[in-house]
Amino acid sequence: MSTRPLILVTNDDGITAPGIRTLISVMNQIGDVVVVAPDSPQSATGHSITINSTLHIEKVNIDGKQPEYSCSGTPVDCVKLAVNEILERRPDICVSGINHGSNSSINVIYSGTMSAAVEAGIEGIPAIGFSLLDYNWSANFEHCKTFVETITRQVLEHGLPEGVVLNVNLPNLKKEEIKGIKICRQAKANWKEEFDKRTNPMGRDYYWLTGKFVNMDEGEDTDEWALENGYVSVVPVHFDLTAHHAIQSLNTWEL
Amino acid sequence: MSTRPLILVTNDDGITAPGIRTLISVMNQIGDVVVVAPDSPQSATGHSITINSTLHIEKVNIDGKQPEYSCSGTPVDCVKLAVNEILERRPDICVSGINHGSNSSINVIYSGTMSAAVEAGIEGIPAIGFSLLDYNWSANFEHCKTFVETITRQVLEHGLPEGVVLNVNLPNLKKEEIKGIKICRQAKANWKEEFDKRTNPMGRDYYWLTGKFVNMDEGEDTDEWALENGYVSVVPVHFDLTAHHAIQSLNTWEL
Repeated sequence: MSTRPLILVTNDDGITAPGIRTLISVMNQIGDVVVVAPDSPQSATGHSITINSTLHIEKVNIDGKQPEYSCSGTPVDCVKLAVNEILERRPDICVSGINHGSNSSINVIYSGTMSAAVEAGIEGIPAIGFSLLDYNWSANFEHCKTFVETITRQVLEHGLPEGVVLNVNLPNLKKEEIKGIKICRQAKANWKEEFDKRTNPMGRDYYWLTGKFVNMDEGEDTDEWALENGYVSVVPVHFDLTAHHAIQSLNTWEL
Repeated sequence: MSTRPLILVTNDDGITAPGIRTLISVMNQIGDVVVVAPDSPQSATGHSITINSTLHIEKVNIDGKQPEYSCSGTPVDCVKLAVNEILERRPDICVSGINHGSNSSINVIYSGTMSAAVEAGIEGIPAIGFSLLDYNWSANFEHCKTFVETITRQVLEHGLPEGVVLNVNLPNLKKEEIKGIKICRQAKANWKEEFDKRTNPMGRDYYWLTGKFVNMDEGEDTDEWALENGYVSVVPVHFDLTAHHAIQSLNTWEL
């Protein structure tokens, strides 16, 4: 029987994305890998799950010997199906990504990559989402490998506090330009939307969502600061959304 | 010029759902209402946004005189379109719901209703998500009206702390059986999935997601406790997902 850790690998860019292929190659150095990932791109699907239609799973062979399953659902569906239908035992860790593009600061909330990690966390499985600050399909993930391996091995060694998963973002720099790894908080930032309004050939208006990222946070302990200054950012993320600090003031209301 | 508050109303069950029609009728007592809601059910879409396809908006007239816009996107898309393309000024408040079914405890993270409220919060707009613990389309929302009005008026009067929105759940009881309103924290709970595996007429396996809700939290300060004991639950929710308590221990790792 293998004493190597069982590693569930997923993502939101789809099972053939170069980012997940890199992640799989690193995880094969660490443990026994099973891949359960979406059959198509699922970026920005957040914590969406499929409740009003059916789900399909197909066993596929893309590269290497690890078992791989392509799934018709969202990243969160993939984690649920992996844990409940595919894996013979609970995985020791779930890693998601490497995402093509940033999931720092407020992006965590829209991210399918991070939602898969959060879902694993809800199931009590240590989990990490990895993202590279390069949206290109042909992004170079080589320099990510050492950092991904180091962080994954540390999580396997130490575990994670209950209810906590990690959001790891990697700057798009050469390996020798990266200064190290920083534990951070989520920067206060948002997107200024700019809808691109057009008219279709039938004369009907339609919109494309576009926008500009705005960092409103001047702190030097944030993920945005770390990434701008050449560090890999690691934000511990939890899914207790309670704003505990607000409970006292709300109790003074006339309700 | 009107001095009444401008109220954006949305939901995830779709613009014709009885829950949003009830919410609109209450909001018409309080201020000037504009409705921007999905043209079809969008339950459990979480914080999903539409980035890889187009969005359409249609002005519709369902009941009453309030302007209403039916949108092809997710609840979060609706809020973004409302704020950036439809409304002439920023709304004074955004209310989402009344959802057909619970969004208490961990459900907050899957909920389109709550994600719309969170998106408004990210935009700096005070926001509330309302949900009734009855999944039926023909649920009776009458007893919700007083509570919805009271909580909305209190938010308009006091505002909300920065970065905080409210998650309000209403028990499915008669009005006289409801004991009051309680400020709560999110209960620690999750879903035990049970996929229903079937074979389609072509011989291919498919899955339906089902599951059982499991409350693992014995605290009497949680939303689950409040709802089980006849109270309306109000949880302040934030979108800084940083697990601040975990930062110190992570800093001891060898990274």
